[in-house]
Amino acid sequence: MSQYRIVKVGGDLLEKEAQFKEFIHAFSSIEGNKILVHGGGKEASRLLDALNIPVKYHEGRRITDAKTMEIVTMVYGGLINKNVVAKLQAIGVSAIGMAGCDGNIINAHKRIVDKIDYGYAGDIDYVNSNTLIKLMDAGLVPVICPLTHDGHGQLLNTNADTITSEIGISLAHKGQVKLHYCFGINGVLRDFNDKESVIEGIDELTFQKLRSEGNISAGMIPKLTNAFSAIKSGVSHVTIGNHTHFIQPSGYTQIL
Amino acid sequence: MSQYRIVKVGGDLLEKEAQFKEFIHAFSSIEGNKILVHGGGKEASRLLDALNIPVKYHEGRRITDAKTMEIVTMVYGGLINKNVVAKLQAIGVSAIGMAGCDGNIINAHKRIVDKIDYGYAGDIDYVNSNTLIKLMDAGLVPVICPLTHDGHGQLLNTNADTITSEIGISLAHKGQVKLHYCFGINGVLRDFNDKESVIEGIDELTFQKLRSEGNISAGMIPKLTNAFSAIKSGVSHVTIGNHTHFIQPSGYTQIL
Repeated sequence: MSQYRIVKVGGDLLEKEAQFKEFIHAFSSIEGNKILVHGGGKEASRLLDALNIPVKYHEGRRITDAKTMEIVTMVYGGLINKNVVAKLQAIGVSAIGMAGCDGNIINAHKRIVDKIDYGYAGDIDYVNSNTLIKLMDAGLVPVICPLTHDGHGQLLNTNADTITSEIGISLAHKGQVKLHYCFGINGVLRDFNDKESVIEGIDELTFQKLRSEGNISAGMIPKLTNAFSAIKSGVSHVTIGNHTHFIQPSGYTQIL
Repeated sequence: MSQYRIVKVGGDLLEKEAQFKEFIHAFSSIEGNKILVHGGGKEASRLLDALNIPVKYHEGRRITDAKTMEIVTMVYGGLINKNVVAKLQAIGVSAIGMAGCDGNIINAHKRIVDKIDYGYAGDIDYVNSNTLIKLMDAGLVPVICPLTHDGHGQLLNTNADTITSEIGISLAHKGQVKLHYCFGINGVLRDFNDKESVIEGIDELTFQKLRSEGNISAGMIPKLTNAFSAIKSGVSHVTIGNHTHFIQPSGYTQIL
């Protein structure tokens, strides 16, 4: 049975040189089929600021207007993606940078919730795992940025955690999939003032309990929601932890 | 024998909606293995202006400093490349956007001429045609932006006409190659005040003669130099013409 490892790395990590170096070395040591999904980082916000493009919200949710879409296309698809690929190539990983339009790997539609148009935010319709498999079979390592397309020529902005779980679910029909969400802390914390209080295994009931008690940080909730969705949809293994946790035996959170 | 068609499209065309549409439809009608190489357009200059990043020159040659390199990475690798790919996908071409780092397809080194450091301008060392062939064998159509890398993690800015001829020369070892340079006019003109005075066939002697008489425009000289270099290095067919000339029987310039 084919095996696939998918690693998500947050935008924050991309800006910390020493940690990013540790991360790509750990990633390069994974044997076999693997995919890297990266987030956006703060560069897009900095560029929006520098160009005086205002950030728009509707009831707390960000609206991706046409100008903002241009900026994230430049930053995610160009600046971040190509630099990550060049750095992976330098340590012998034959990376290939992709957005969802490339090889039509991720098709999405504009998010419209309760008749509110969130602009160019894209909700995923399907992942074309056959093309990803062809690329991996050719010895390439897809490095995917958080952009999708609607199949009619429009690029869309899509959450990188969701892209990761959807790719995982799609590949779970073809083989055994392990997903690893990397970010700045060691995993899901029992007490988020204590960085060492990592919960080594969490099931959905515990998650709901901790959440209702206010003990899960806001940023962690969508990650965990995506993680449980992946586990329920055939992904065999999901972990959440620091930037090299996926090559370590313990010290991170595993989704049960 | 395998056949490969490589089409170069200038940045100017990307900004003319109607012509660009005609171009991608013509491109989509090419049967078999094909590659699109696109130029940069004026978007990078506009963004440099908007961000107040000065353009530096040494004796008339532009120097690509670190900030400028970031901008061209965003514009060429992100904004232009991903939008071209999304538009090709919309008309059924399974395009895959790439910079030279992706799949390590184009390796280059920093240009240093007479001890002058031109910054992040890259001169090509080699094209990895095996990876391009693998992608085309998988049914994908590479869409290549004018960025390369040095294999040590650094991206470089490389002329799109040169990328086109170097890819052509590399693929000429594997099959029959036809190159088509598309841009705003119908071909090499005998009299550049008369847009209809297209020279249908030009050999290198005629080129040198017209050039010494001052009858070749400055922008055409590097294109023709690349074109003759391709023909001398095994490319079977090179044409220069307007945005759809490669599907037309005549009305453009063929390199003899």
